[in-house]
Amino acid sequence: MNAIILTVGDELLIGQVVNTNAAWLGEQLGLAGMTVARMETVGDDVAAIRRALERGLDEAEVVVVTGGLGPTHDDVTMRAVADGLGREVVLRPELLAEVEAKLAARGRPMRPAHRVFAEVPEGFEALPNPRGMAPGLWGARDDGRLVVVMPGVPHEMEAICTQHVLPRLRARAGDAVVLHRTLLTAGEGEAALAERLGDLSDVLTDGVTLAFLPGIGGVRLRLTVRGADRAAAQEALDRHAARLRRDLGALVFGEDDDTLEGVVGAMLAERGLTLAVAESCTGGAVAARITSVPGASRYFVGGVVAYGNAVKARQLGVEEAVLREQGAVSEPVARQMAAGARTALGADLAVSTTGIAGPTGGTPEKPVGLVWLGYADAAGTHAVRLQLTTDRAVNVGLAATAALNLVRRQLLRGARR
Amino acid sequence: MNAIILTVGDELLIGQVVNTNAAWLGEQLGLAGMTVARMETVGDDVAAIRRALERGLDEAEVVVVTGGLGPTHDDVTMRAVADGLGREVVLRPELLAEVEAKLAARGRPMRPAHRVFAEVPEGFEALPNPRGMAPGLWGARDDGRLVVVMPGVPHEMEAICTQHVLPRLRARAGDAVVLHRTLLTAGEGEAALAERLGDLSDVLTDGVTLAFLPGIGGVRLRLTVRGADRAAAQEALDRHAARLRRDLGALVFGEDDDTLEGVVGAMLAERGLTLAVAESCTGGAVAARITSVPGASRYFVGGVVAYGNAVKARQLGVEEAVLREQGAVSEPVARQMAAGARTALGADLAVSTTGIAGPTGGTPEKPVGLVWLGYADAAGTHAVRLQLTTDRAVNVGLAATAALNLVRRQLLRGARR
Repeated sequence: MNAIILTVGDELLIGQVVNTNAAWLGEQLGLAGMTVARMETVGDDVAAIRRALERGLDEAEVVVVTGGLGPTHDDVTMRAVADGLGREVVLRPELLAEVEAKLAARGRPMRPAHRVFAEVPEGFEALPNPRGMAPGLWGARDDGRLVVVMPGVPHEMEAICTQHVLPRLRARAGDAVVLHRTLLTAGEGEAALAERLGDLSDVLTDGVTLAFLPGIGGVRLRLTVRGADRAAAQEALDRHAARLRRDLGALVFGEDDDTLEGVVGAMLAERGLTLAVAESCTGGAVAARITSVPGASRYFVGGVVAYGNAVKARQLGVEEAVLREQGAVSEPVARQMAAGARTALGADLAVSTTGIAGPTGGTPEKPVGLVWLGYADAAGTHAVRLQLTTDRAVNVGLAATAALNLVRRQLLRGARR
Repeated sequence: MNAIILTVGDELLIGQVVNTNAAWLGEQLGLAGMTVARMETVGDDVAAIRRALERGLDEAEVVVVTGGLGPTHDDVTMRAVADGLGREVVLRPELLAEVEAKLAARGRPMRPAHRVFAEVPEGFEALPNPRGMAPGLWGARDDGRLVVVMPGVPHEMEAICTQHVLPRLRARAGDAVVLHRTLLTAGEGEAALAERLGDLSDVLTDGVTLAFLPGIGGVRLRLTVRGADRAAAQEALDRHAARLRRDLGALVFGEDDDTLEGVVGAMLAERGLTLAVAESCTGGAVAARITSVPGASRYFVGGVVAYGNAVKARQLGVEEAVLREQGAVSEPVARQMAAGARTALGADLAVSTTGIAGPTGGTPEKPVGLVWLGYADAAGTHAVRLQLTTDRAVNVGLAATAALNLVRRQLLRGARR
């Protein structure tokens, strides 16, 4: 089943916004068993949207449109879709009631501009938007070819697509079986993983492919199996995943939608242990990732963002002589930060970060990208040295991943209260 | 002069690579005075590239193509361009000599696959590639409409485009000018901003357009001016931006590439003030945004992520009776957290967050999305109540933006040490 992705927005044409929606949709539609034949981007212009939509529907079974569903004059996508398909725009009272309820829940008044969120092209179904006001739209041209419209705000689009659009498209993709499983790893780069796995050409048979997807959160290994028979495909996927897990051991921390912070949180909860953090170079990013998991309060007591040396000394008890003699980015400071957070915040385990995030502040002895991680539990302290990149945001992300992975590895080794 | 951007590559369609080339080209072509009418992405397929090229040349004066110029079997762009324009592919001896020289300089032998780098469609000019092997291609259809082809590797494409393509296009665009300015706002939604600005149809004249772009970090308002005269366009842009700033007042926190955390940081640095944070529901996200700015250590001393109540009491001095009687998500706790962070961490100002991020944990009196922000400086404390959404990640993002904006508003009101 062929799909065309149509993204709408002047901000894309002038390069103000990079089109991450198209890439996200390309991946997700592919995983749902569709073939993305083409992507197109047009501005906030009724005629341009209509032309692209009509062309897309002539070429493919489904056109997925994002962007231009907001309440202001430049949001013209719904009007263009209705015009293009020869439909009226109708106001749905039940949607209007939902809009009013959403606004009331946020203590905001209903404004005339909000009525647009209750309007749909005749014959279209509204798909609930759990993260915003504009619903998604699901409908078809008279010849049955599908039109799906979603807002352009990425987290709203992703929620609507995941909850409502992908399950429906997957059901329509029919007999062709495309199964995926992604093994999530942390602690080694792409090349080291490839070397560890060795030559895979004899193993990756039966329509099985393996992609290495590196990122800030670790390297993902995506297995894909295509076939006509679901049971056989499932068996092949299980077999290959088991083989990768055997070869990679503890480098694999999870699968598919797992997150490192979620896995670490589940391990802590299962063992009845609590965690605290002390962050310098990551500036709150480790705590933010831990607390992104619902229910993190069961095992996360809190943290100290010890950006200045005074806070390292006062809140965490790092010795001023050590700060002076070894510098804030050093092994003893990382150890003392972790030990201090554990004691001061009253947790079973603690992890710390101190480093030179960049882009400036490096020296020949301590270059940009140097990071020390500290860990403390009842058995004592432990430290790990990393040499990362010259990019500030990348360094913060990689250091936060490494800190979470350090806690995971210590838990696997049997960390105790 | 209209342009269409055509990016080629299967990796774009399956979402493995985000199309940063399209955004970069969109911005650069706009700055060169062209209007990007549309963007299209197709796979490594001769027929698909031909169709898209022909369609593009029927619609616009120039089609800029990137990707698929490499030496492997899946690189078919040059063949597709030649076929589409009815031209032969010819081997240029002088280009072959250059290819041999480049390879020799890198100590690599000439292989048969390298010959493709010396081939061009008849009538096309080769544009030197200072960073790689594949030259750019500059030519025209028989009716004079331009075709520009560049490799897809971003740094090669950018070099060829900057050195050879943009100067030529700028010369052809003549006097046409397209200028943009984006005003960044925080504190109100799209609909409220639109109402505050009123009917703009009388103001937005002279080829000026206004777009509303909402996001977690606030609503961006983008002005675009098209005209024949650069001075007049610049004047119109300045005039409209001044009018929007006047109507929106302190809702506007910056322009173009500014960030709220960068603006707040610059205000703190300018006033010689330091900041601390105390975060509960945002879990480190406020500190992470503040420290994402290089040089944040000049004004940011640190923070406490007070996730558990014990940490709120022990590290920030929040009274246990207040926690017990009013609950952690309450106005007095927000105030005491801010005051406590200010004192404990030794900062001039402090901001705090406490709320119910969700998805669970709400009650009828304190629903998911309820957030209290606290602020403290030498003059005392202040608190703000927000009612956000039911989505955990959105609530954390919006609360962090609101906390940063609270600090900004207090600084504007003359916050002192």
